[in-house]
Amino acid sequence: GHVIVCGFGRNGRKAYLELRASGAQVVVVELDEAVLQEDVADEAAQDKNISVVRGDATLDDTLRAAGVERARALITTLPKDADNVFVALTARELAPSITIVARASLKSSETKLLRAGADSVVMPDEIGGSHMANLIMRPEVIRFLDMISGLGPHRLRLEELRTEELRPELRGRSIRELDVRSRTGTTVIGLRHQSGEFTISPPADIVPVPGDVFLFLGTEEQIVKLLDLFRLV
Amino acid sequence: GHVIVCGFGRNGRKAYLELRASGAQVVVVELDEAVLQEDVADEAAQDKNISVVRGDATLDDTLRAAGVERARALITTLPKDADNVFVALTARELAPSITIVARASLKSSETKLLRAGADSVVMPDEIGGSHMANLIMRPEVIRFLDMISGLGPHRLRLEELRTEELRPELRGRSIRELDVRSRTGTTVIGLRHQSGEFTISPPADIVPVPGDVFLFLGTEEQIVKLLDLFRLV
Ligand SMILES: [Ca+2]
Ligand SMILES: [Ca+2]
Repeated sequence: GHVIVCGFGRNGRKAYLELRASGAQVVVVELDEAVLQEDVADEAAQDKNISVVRGDATLDDTLRAAGVERARALITTLPKDADNVFVALTARELAPSITIVARASLKSSETKLLRAGADSVVMPDEIGGSHMANLIMRPEVIRFLDMISGLGPHRLRLEELRTEELRPELRGRSIRELDVRSRTGTTVIGLRHQSGEFTISPPADIVPVPGDVFLFLGTEEQIVKLLDLFRLV
Repeated sequence: GHVIVCGFGRNGRKAYLELRASGAQVVVVELDEAVLQEDVADEAAQDKNISVVRGDATLDDTLRAAGVERARALITTLPKDADNVFVALTARELAPSITIVARASLKSSETKLLRAGADSVVMPDEIGGSHMANLIMRPEVIRFLDMISGLGPHRLRLEELRTEELRPELRGRSIRELDVRSRTGTTVIGLRHQSGEFTISPPADIVPVPGDVFLFLGTEEQIVKLLDLFRLV
């Protein structure tokens, strides 16, 4: 299914670009024609293949026109928290199993959004504020986080792979036997277990079981090689 | 030295709280008395020990009153990018070696801020937008990043330690000899070299040299134990 992005402000544009870069199909919902046209220097606005539904995302009909019933996920980034609550309620009603991610300006909107049906709430001002403080107090930490989230100058890519996505001949092998590092240059930086527990830098003798999710870290090139060699086609 | 936070909006407040949590001394610069009082539910606004300079951060005298010449760092989070450029220029002029972190709304302001003297520029809307897209496309990755940046429910702490900060008897030893994991439960997740290069999950036989910075990952308790056992007092 596709991903619906409600609101094409700075937040929505960045989400749109990242989704496209990851290969997702995206439908943008935006009320204001001017916002869609503004700032020709903007990479997202220049995209000729962008799918747009012009309309008010808080209305059932608009979300239906954006194909909410078939969508895998919806991101709502409208300027007012109250409107995002309304969108989350509507989307949850029309598509009970859709994944909903909502932006919030105020901390006090977080629980309202979760009650309205959002699966996750993101507060850009809080994230930005933490980031600024950490740049001063723990600069290496931030450099590392930027690197692994693909924001910094030395970009690395963090990729997840479920055990079930491994080629069949690679399942049931220990991390040592998989020999990821010498075959691809990437590192198994974590293993998330079905229980929700997380093993950081898992020991080489661990044998991942079904339900486990690998987290690999490497350069873009190394990750591409990894997916090529290890992932089920 | 202390840290100056210019602007006490949502961004500045969050930065303030994080800085205080890390034990930094903070001076807030804010023009608007109403902003300082508003929203009594706000944790930052309720802080009785907060040091505030009321005034326009773009003026030399205000920054001087905030002790810019003695400060280790300045974070500028004024609503207008142009004002943040002006603050960065002023601060750089008055305190050539201060660390300056600036917030930007527009991507196009980034180079202007760097030219004006900012060491780092943070764009909350971009970070928030990426975060929302990644929550859908790579949920395990985001869960991991939230965990290691202390945002998620399963909090881990990522801590940096320079080789020079190690107890003298521990210097010149390989990672295997340091035996960090069995002694403290933490993991050496990275090693940053003076060249700027970064080794992820460094092999156990590496011997860190002066200038290298360790990145450790563990629970709060494990990191406290690590600092207690390994860090120079
Ligand atoms: Ca949403
Ligand atoms: Ca600054």
